[in-house]
Amino acid sequence: MRDFLPEDVRRREHVIGIIKRVYERYGFEPLETPAVENIETLLGKYGEEGNQLIFKILKRGEHEATGQADLALRYDLTVPLARVVAQYQSRLPRLFKRYQIQPVWRADRPARGRFREFYQCDVDSLGSTSPVVEAELCAAVSDALSDLGFTDFRIRLNHRQLLTAVLDAAGVPSHLHATALVAFDKFDKIQFEGVLNELIDRGVASREAAVDLASIFTGPIAMDTLNESPRATLDDIAQFLSDEKRDIAPVENLRQIIQLTETTSAKGRIRFDPILARGLSYYTGAIMEINVADLAGSLGGGGRYDNLVGMFLGQNIPACGFSLGLERILVVMGERNMFPPSLATTPADVMIATFDASGAAAAMRLAATLRAAGLRVLVYPDPEKIGKQIKYADSRGIPFVALLGENEIKDDTVTVKNLAAQSQDTHRQSDAGAKILEALKQRG
Amino acid sequence: MRDFLPEDVRRREHVIGIIKRVYERYGFEPLETPAVENIETLLGKYGEEGNQLIFKILKRGEHEATGQADLALRYDLTVPLARVVAQYQSRLPRLFKRYQIQPVWRADRPARGRFREFYQCDVDSLGSTSPVVEAELCAAVSDALSDLGFTDFRIRLNHRQLLTAVLDAAGVPSHLHATALVAFDKFDKIQFEGVLNELIDRGVASREAAVDLASIFTGPIAMDTLNESPRATLDDIAQFLSDEKRDIAPVENLRQIIQLTETTSAKGRIRFDPILARGLSYYTGAIMEINVADLAGSLGGGGRYDNLVGMFLGQNIPACGFSLGLERILVVMGERNMFPPSLATTPADVMIATFDASGAAAAMRLAATLRAAGLRVLVYPDPEKIGKQIKYADSRGIPFVALLGENEIKDDTVTVKNLAAQSQDTHRQSDAGAKILEALKQRG
Repeated sequence: MRDFLPEDVRRREHVIGIIKRVYERYGFEPLETPAVENIETLLGKYGEEGNQLIFKILKRGEHEATGQADLALRYDLTVPLARVVAQYQSRLPRLFKRYQIQPVWRADRPARGRFREFYQCDVDSLGSTSPVVEAELCAAVSDALSDLGFTDFRIRLNHRQLLTAVLDAAGVPSHLHATALVAFDKFDKIQFEGVLNELIDRGVASREAAVDLASIFTGPIAMDTLNESPRATLDDIAQFLSDEKRDIAPVENLRQIIQLTETTSAKGRIRFDPILARGLSYYTGAIMEINVADLAGSLGGGGRYDNLVGMFLGQNIPACGFSLGLERILVVMGERNMFPPSLATTPADVMIATFDASGAAAAMRLAATLRAAGLRVLVYPDPEKIGKQIKYADSRGIPFVALLGENEIKDDTVTVKNLAAQSQDTHRQSDAGAKILEALKQRG
Repeated sequence: MRDFLPEDVRRREHVIGIIKRVYERYGFEPLETPAVENIETLLGKYGEEGNQLIFKILKRGEHEATGQADLALRYDLTVPLARVVAQYQSRLPRLFKRYQIQPVWRADRPARGRFREFYQCDVDSLGSTSPVVEAELCAAVSDALSDLGFTDFRIRLNHRQLLTAVLDAAGVPSHLHATALVAFDKFDKIQFEGVLNELIDRGVASREAAVDLASIFTGPIAMDTLNESPRATLDDIAQFLSDEKRDIAPVENLRQIIQLTETTSAKGRIRFDPILARGLSYYTGAIMEINVADLAGSLGGGGRYDNLVGMFLGQNIPACGFSLGLERILVVMGERNMFPPSLATTPADVMIATFDASGAAAAMRLAATLRAAGLRVLVYPDPEKIGKQIKYADSRGIPFVALLGENEIKDDTVTVKNLAAQSQDTHRQSDAGAKILEALKQRG
């Protein structure tokens, strides 16, 4: 877990601000839930590995000694959302679109862009099964990443029911579906032969059946292009399912989603990926993941989960969401120098220096005047040597120093030093704010 | 612990936004620390009661079964700040002014305006012993509360060393100081006689000594005004200390602080209160608390703590801070109807209704156009009966509904319904954004 010093916080708030504005343009409303949930709310929602990674909080009072835990730290923002929707059903609208940008905690081993405390920027729609929901989510995250300055992201799209149908049709028994998908998930890393070996080693299929299965996902391509991560197209999969007399509704759903995004910023960014699986167990329909070339993990992902609210409410409410990982976005933006130079890096626009303790009251009066003019003002609190005070301003990147000597205080004036230009001017105190603002604009 | 539905979040963000802007005008920089600290960092910093109220997190892995806790939830923002200042000393400036607005957790019994998870809005200056620091803090919180719309708050001011000096001079042994202060803290509730009884019952003093002691704090006043919560003035206390040949430096310090705030928004709001004590054990100098008449607790408080960083660094760094309680502020603002009506209460400015599924792509295209114009747009995802869709918009307070029928799609137009005015106009799609923005402005 990390501390965020001022420069870090400003970068985080820059990114969060842009994401929030985009989500609000899409009609999503803010929701916040407590960091701590009842432990029963979380257990059993994230699979076996997830259960292990939940931070558990000791029960209070006499039970403390027994090691009993009754509370736990939030593990994601989706399960708390499902709990909220069940708990406040009568107060929430039939169609509920919410965003939530808050930290979650996982007792994971830290790695690059992976931390034990990290922020998720979630956006979810509840109450509709329409593909408009998925399309709007793809458009919203595309807008957000575009507004942040990303030009090269890709959204991979698949459908849980499509994966199930293909594996069923290929004769993979249900209990081996997850194993097969783990193998396919490594396709880009270990290529066709590697996937075949994994399928055989893990007992999913004989060599012959494994080749057949892999060929469904890679499509009817020449073997010499196999190292370029080939993928079956939506048409290929539709053809396969239809040959096998399987339901092609999931294919139609994905076609609609892609078509609906054609008039949005997600246009051209969505790529059907027949082996995208997503880890979490609660997805039931379309699944999405967003990537850039220079980050191994994803910038975010999501999908449809029509049964999760039912685990709390006893009655299903259709739902679909997308989560952007703040830390991943920050890592890539940092490496690519994507933060605007206008992002404040100084604590103040102007520092007021004082010559002796008796000048402090005058300094505070001037500070009030300059602050009222809209400036960020730091009053140097101790009457140290002026050279030392100016050096402090310079080391902090504060561009202007206001000097209040005996004469200035007597005349109600102030001498303003421009540190970069190494120039200084004396102004009436009532004019100084406007003068400094003007000079700041000229600096750009 | 509570969930915050959209309206709650908007109110919270309104308040946080105003407080942040003020703090930045004063040259404070943002800092964030993790929710979770090592348990040793927190234990022993808040007194015995504090230790009891810390939420403890189970150690991972094999230790989980033993009930051993190695982490804990943040209890306040001051101790993490002291840890950060010690840990990053070489990267932080000599004078460090930071603000931090984050939740803290206490395993307390909930009450009105008191929760187990609550936000503190802290502002602290490190590196200077100058009274300018205290004065700027008082001015900053005064500006913040004024900008929020408060006109009636009072800042009570006292000094830890003054309390010690008076109790010492009155012959109260050190180990009974805390007990005596608890009694005086109830002055406004139980009056003079009540305080006397407490002092006698708790073994602080005989009746005669208790009357003498109480008279120091209440000042040389007539007995018939004792029920009006009288207080000794700074002059009274200075006179007493000087008669007793005690150090009056703390009195001088408070005089300077009050004088320095005379040119700020804190002018006239500060009142010396000789029995203000503040609970936390780490204060060493001036202490402050901010109150309004209609809230029993305080809106915030703070003080100087010159020795806390030394507990982590082995070398003291002077420090002083002020903390505003977000939840307390929200409670009072809610009861007084202080939230601006402009605070958004709707999810969108306009909702796009669609007549059939084939219209969804046109709806999404129009949504992109309207969003680019700066509007918050909700696309109704399901082609339900138009009446039902309009009813939804109305129930959510969405002022405009854009209707996209077959004709509109063919002509590249849109019919915009103003729900409040019960009127409608048809515009070219490219003009609709500007027209709706104009109509929104007219609504005010």
